[in-house]
Amino acid sequence: MSLAASLLQGDVRALAKAISLAEDRDPEATQIVTELQPQTGRAHLVGITGAPGSGKSSLVDLLLQVIRQRGKTVGVVAVDPSSPFTGGAVLGDRIRMQRHTLDKGVFIRSMGARGHLGGLAAATREVIHLLDAYGRDVIIVETVGVGQSELEIGTVCDTTVLVLVPESGDAVQSIKAGIMEIADIFVINKADLGGAEKTRRLIQDAMALGPAPAWAPPILLTAAIKDQGGVELWQAIERHWEYLSQGGGLQDRRLQRLKQEVLALVAEQARDDARQQLEGDTPVARRLRQNPNGTLNPYALAAELMGRAR
Amino acid sequence: MSLAASLLQGDVRALAKAISLAEDRDPEATQIVTELQPQTGRAHLVGITGAPGSGKSSLVDLLLQVIRQRGKTVGVVAVDPSSPFTGGAVLGDRIRMQRHTLDKGVFIRSMGARGHLGGLAAATREVIHLLDAYGRDVIIVETVGVGQSELEIGTVCDTTVLVLVPESGDAVQSIKAGIMEIADIFVINKADLGGAEKTRRLIQDAMALGPAPAWAPPILLTAAIKDQGGVELWQAIERHWEYLSQGGGLQDRRLQRLKQEVLALVAEQARDDARQQLEGDTPVARRLRQNPNGTLNPYALAAELMGRAR
Repeated sequence: MSLAASLLQGDVRALAKAISLAEDRDPEATQIVTELQPQTGRAHLVGITGAPGSGKSSLVDLLLQVIRQRGKTVGVVAVDPSSPFTGGAVLGDRIRMQRHTLDKGVFIRSMGARGHLGGLAAATREVIHLLDAYGRDVIIVETVGVGQSELEIGTVCDTTVLVLVPESGDAVQSIKAGIMEIADIFVINKADLGGAEKTRRLIQDAMALGPAPAWAPPILLTAAIKDQGGVELWQAIERHWEYLSQGGGLQDRRLQRLKQEVLALVAEQARDDARQQLEGDTPVARRLRQNPNGTLNPYALAAELMGRAR
Repeated sequence: MSLAASLLQGDVRALAKAISLAEDRDPEATQIVTELQPQTGRAHLVGITGAPGSGKSSLVDLLLQVIRQRGKTVGVVAVDPSSPFTGGAVLGDRIRMQRHTLDKGVFIRSMGARGHLGGLAAATREVIHLLDAYGRDVIIVETVGVGQSELEIGTVCDTTVLVLVPESGDAVQSIKAGIMEIADIFVINKADLGGAEKTRRLIQDAMALGPAPAWAPPILLTAAIKDQGGVELWQAIERHWEYLSQGGGLQDRRLQRLKQEVLALVAEQARDDARQQLEGDTPVARRLRQNPNGTLNPYALAAELMGRAR
């Protein structure tokens, strides 16, 4: 049986193998995802994003409990671009999640940047497709950072949860940078430390400045490490899913996601093609090797590699 | 006078304007860099990289003092992919550096990720060219992260300094992940906190396992916040520069840098081209818009956008 067929039948080893192929940027992964594409689109993709130290992993762990109590299956993709490691269990944070490893309804995979970040983003997208085809009801994509991760990975998810901590300054930064716009749900984690109400007001005030949106992002207080607020967060996530599904723009969001994926694939493919030309016995590769001081015009070289005159 | 000409004559406002154009991914920046390309290649590019909290900015601040005492001019590009902010003074770390702002021999620019990371990397490369043409003797590129930053930006610099802190675990992680190979100089910062010797032995032991390299990366202890170790670090950086210049592979390193830049430009250009197709009234754009559920095959769409049959 093909790997794709095994995966569809619920073989977790086939899933793990396919994910490894995706991480290795193996062309076989592309074929598997292509084969499985018609079986995707059912999962609810939930992004959990926030700065390092905001307690995202604990929050995911808490969500896993709540989601499993409701009988739904979950896949977790923990993306850490600053880690060159994969396979999980590197960060202490992850260890907490490992207690779910005996539960077949939970599949967790950590992914780090082995090469360039474009590769990581492409691999993450493939892994999401694989978990979707595998039949997970919910797929959680955990990403590090207030910053690029939202801007790149945020377009991937149906529901994006932005995790802040009280008075961390991240809230203010998020407001300034317009990052708030990507949040469907705000979570102020570590709310037991105090200062959460002030942060909540800060976010509320910032939201009041803009036009009233069709979906008003709720602001939830959690203390994940103390198992507080998980049920309320999951209920908010489900409400957002209902909103999206009932005319709230689910299709449009998924179309945007597909566009982003296609653009990323184009960039990755073009880079690979150009690399092959540079490494082969092509005129441009010869010229590069003969260049004594590295001051050739990079724009002209790029245009030449793409088959354009400048 | 053109912006490029003003920049060459030492007009700092022209430099700042050109850098802003590069950050905005304005095509004019490309033209300016192309015009200035023959005037580049003289600066010594020094990369300072390490995990968040390792004290990179303090270390850069310390280096600035040492370099300026020796009468050399410096440009600093502080790249923080996790920050959507630019223009500096966002992180508390940066504030310390600001005391150099009255010194015309120091030019500091912080860059964050406004859009996708490929754009940040491309902008960073252009800013380096601009500072080079501006005549800076030394250009310091400060990047966050033990992880992707080295893998992407590390190929950019002549000399790469990897900043670790005692017993942080980063040292062990670096060794495991083969990140050590990118370091020309190791710095164990915050050495006053204790544990630095143990970390030094860890690095030494790891290096002893490999073949003896032509350049044996020195391991330096610093306490940047206490102004300790700056002179020794700068001396090590200068020794590495001499080594590179005297047959140690400077040309080869710069050729690799040019290759990476060209590949990044190709990827960015291909992405932009594809985006235009998707936003225009093209067959593929129409098909995308008619797709009700976002389950079109992204690989086939990418191939179509690149003008290939699949």
